[in-house]
Amino acid sequence: MSQELGITVDKQKNPSEWYTEVVKKADLADYAPVKGCMIIKPYGMKIWESIKDCFDQKIKETGVDPVYFPLFIPENYLEKEGDIVEGFDPEVAWVTHGGNKELEEKIAVRPTSESIIAPYMSEWIRSHRDLPMRLNQWANVVRWEATDTRPFLRTREFLWQEGHTAHATEEGADEETMLRLEQYREVIEDHLAIPSLLGYKPEHDKFPGAKYTTTIETLMPDGKSIQSGTSHQLGQHFAKAFDITFEDENAEKQTCYTTSWGLSTRTIGALIMAHGDNKGLQLPPTVAPTQLVVVPIYQDENRSEVIEYSEKVVEKLKEEGIRVEHDTREHRTPGYKFNEWELKGVPLRIEIGPNEVEDNQITMVRRDKDGKTPVDRKLVDAEAQSMLEKIQGNMYDQLADYLEDNIREAENKEEILGTIGKNRGYVKTKWCGKETCEQEIKDPVSAEIVVLPFRENSKPETIMKEDEEIEGKCAVCDEKAKTWAYFAKNY
Amino acid sequence: MSQELGITVDKQKNPSEWYTEVVKKADLADYAPVKGCMIIKPYGMKIWESIKDCFDQKIKETGVDPVYFPLFIPENYLEKEGDIVEGFDPEVAWVTHGGNKELEEKIAVRPTSESIIAPYMSEWIRSHRDLPMRLNQWANVVRWEATDTRPFLRTREFLWQEGHTAHATEEGADEETMLRLEQYREVIEDHLAIPSLLGYKPEHDKFPGAKYTTTIETLMPDGKSIQSGTSHQLGQHFAKAFDITFEDENAEKQTCYTTSWGLSTRTIGALIMAHGDNKGLQLPPTVAPTQLVVVPIYQDENRSEVIEYSEKVVEKLKEEGIRVEHDTREHRTPGYKFNEWELKGVPLRIEIGPNEVEDNQITMVRRDKDGKTPVDRKLVDAEAQSMLEKIQGNMYDQLADYLEDNIREAENKEEILGTIGKNRGYVKTKWCGKETCEQEIKDPVSAEIVVLPFRENSKPETIMKEDEEIEGKCAVCDEKAKTWAYFAKNY
Repeated sequence: MSQELGITVDKQKNPSEWYTEVVKKADLADYAPVKGCMIIKPYGMKIWESIKDCFDQKIKETGVDPVYFPLFIPENYLEKEGDIVEGFDPEVAWVTHGGNKELEEKIAVRPTSESIIAPYMSEWIRSHRDLPMRLNQWANVVRWEATDTRPFLRTREFLWQEGHTAHATEEGADEETMLRLEQYREVIEDHLAIPSLLGYKPEHDKFPGAKYTTTIETLMPDGKSIQSGTSHQLGQHFAKAFDITFEDENAEKQTCYTTSWGLSTRTIGALIMAHGDNKGLQLPPTVAPTQLVVVPIYQDENRSEVIEYSEKVVEKLKEEGIRVEHDTREHRTPGYKFNEWELKGVPLRIEIGPNEVEDNQITMVRRDKDGKTPVDRKLVDAEAQSMLEKIQGNMYDQLADYLEDNIREAENKEEILGTIGKNRGYVKTKWCGKETCEQEIKDPVSAEIVVLPFRENSKPETIMKEDEEIEGKCAVCDEKAKTWAYFAKNY
Repeated sequence: MSQELGITVDKQKNPSEWYTEVVKKADLADYAPVKGCMIIKPYGMKIWESIKDCFDQKIKETGVDPVYFPLFIPENYLEKEGDIVEGFDPEVAWVTHGGNKELEEKIAVRPTSESIIAPYMSEWIRSHRDLPMRLNQWANVVRWEATDTRPFLRTREFLWQEGHTAHATEEGADEETMLRLEQYREVIEDHLAIPSLLGYKPEHDKFPGAKYTTTIETLMPDGKSIQSGTSHQLGQHFAKAFDITFEDENAEKQTCYTTSWGLSTRTIGALIMAHGDNKGLQLPPTVAPTQLVVVPIYQDENRSEVIEYSEKVVEKLKEEGIRVEHDTREHRTPGYKFNEWELKGVPLRIEIGPNEVEDNQITMVRRDKDGKTPVDRKLVDAEAQSMLEKIQGNMYDQLADYLEDNIREAENKEEILGTIGKNRGYVKTKWCGKETCEQEIKDPVSAEIVVLPFRENSKPETIMKEDEEIEGKCAVCDEKAKTWAYFAKNY
């Protein structure tokens, strides 16, 4: 493989440079002229479309309507939100001129849309019959991050969905918050094959103005945790500020409970980091734009019979509904092609040479494991389908092992500090709930509490109805513990 | 029907106010706090998603890849384009501050993306094997229109797709331009049931820098023409300026030919205007979020049997794949419901009362024609499907008649002026190709040449290979005519 094509940085030794190289060489994204912005190339965009379609279908099946609010938010709208909560002000990009004139009031490029959606919800909701109101938009948002921008993981402009809902009861808002978190889990764990942790953010780290914030946290190969999706129960905080009220069955005015929840192109960054290896990108079959590549191998004298044979195989795979590429490029060697498709993370390869033609077979090669498997040509469609399912399962299982191996329990401050200093991953510990105790860990080793896990084996929809009661003392201050907490460095 | 619910303005008498009322009352859009921006409400957004899905599928099937370029374009990129062509400068919105700091260089919010896509195409295209390169993005763009903004029809921010392609040969670029125009025709005529005119824009009115611009023009009920989609063959103009070159089979450097093409949320404006009537919106079945509404009509004593019956009908229609709503709201009368669904433009209604239950029938009511049709319950799915097809056809045919009735031929300047002054629609005339002749019409009556029609009965893909030769003289100046031209007032 040529130096130019292949990945030259070791993922374990230098995950950050490795990431940059994979993004570029697997053709996922390019750097934009405005610092911190990115150009999503077709291969990256197909992955985003797959994630988008997957989640969009789930939310539409569960009562969410599409909507589009403007990119531009007047300063006084943001200020109104700023009165309620600590806002995004320092990160806002401002439009001050339009059509060659200075504007009377500067206009924000949306960093998120609560401040403009809430006043309209207030107008649109009249009666209990209008509830629940569930709106979602797929949009671009801008946050003027100052430092350390990286394609997908941290960009000034990114694509996301933002869901905004209003409910008659707090129970309705609780259920909504947990339903969307569960749907994020389905996207991250089932679609992207990345086992993750679900739970709450600590009180002091929740979304400004939220009653509580839930998160799905994913462990990256550098041992840091990344928030893959987040769902907020906003209580009546925003509803009171923006007068989101309704007339109940008895014609009495009531205040709504609201939620918001978001998932962004950052997920692609998590996907790259989680599954990639020193050959490049590695994609789970469910999300891979190309699930299987067929590479014919021939000399001049047997070219036509090999190609004819491989075309029939490709046809059969397509009929089975598999997303397949037939790589018949004449100017590339089979070896080059193997490396390139591995770099692009295609989960399964079929090689067909004169031997396969003679034996009426094909040879399957998995991206996730070494070894070649001969398969009877008649069985190629069923075998490919079953192999893709195995790959999906194996990719999930490998990361599940990695996650399990990197959750370490610690019982006191020294153990926490020592474990974080020495190892990657999460330190699981008991916590009293005080920010000061977190600070004692944060100051020396820059790790913080990234998630308060839901009770083990509990499903999201059940946990809201139970209190989290645990035995024992806070690992830092020795006061009575209130919850398990996971410390980690994070993105 | 309450005054508040119904449409109060006559479409023929005051199309502009009628339009505003329909947009608002049919729940399509709302006004945003920043002037000229709009909020697309769920009902409007579902229509946009239908248009988007329809076109996106067509372009993906014909080799176009999805991509996403940044919202922000540095000033010097736009200036580079400005050197080549008359740009969008006066309409640009500028970001001057980010993260509380003044930026070193002001940044444009994209009015369109040629100036940022072209330099990347230049980088990404190396060899003839990279061609054709076909990219498309669905995105928001901003043009700081000063006056007369209206939801969908003319907004400062709108949603659109912009396709950008590069080809090895001019023939390739010609075919691409015409293929996308034909796909716009399929969206507008087949999906939205609006017969339209296809052709070129006059030389002086083409996209700045284009070799030629093609357009699909739709006649609105106020007699004005609206551009529903546009596809540009850019020749080598942009490719030379941005160095979009490739190495051909002989390892020689060649310059590409490029195209661009776009369709926006303006199409929704055309849809509303074209099909709506004094009852409100009217949607063709293919694009209608709800194709059919079932309204049960009952008294307390027969409620349960009517509802049970109508539920079975709804189930059967859903199995048939029809997008159906079952309107069981208790707090609304059947009359109110009829009016509301007519206002929202649902193409077909089924009424079910005790009589229908007794006779094992249902009653069908079309949105596009008066009259009620009783249908045997056993046949409801097939009959509904066939009725929806008839409605689609009838809606198209009605507008085809309207279009035909409003194309009037004129043979000299006085006739052109007289016809435009007296009537709505297009004036068909012979034209020499000189802008000055158009100006003689434009000055007194504000009508211009909106389209040079393709030769009658020729398909778009064939017309590029033939010269347009017509007999006779220009209607304005008496010089030899070069082409047919359609004058109209336009949006």
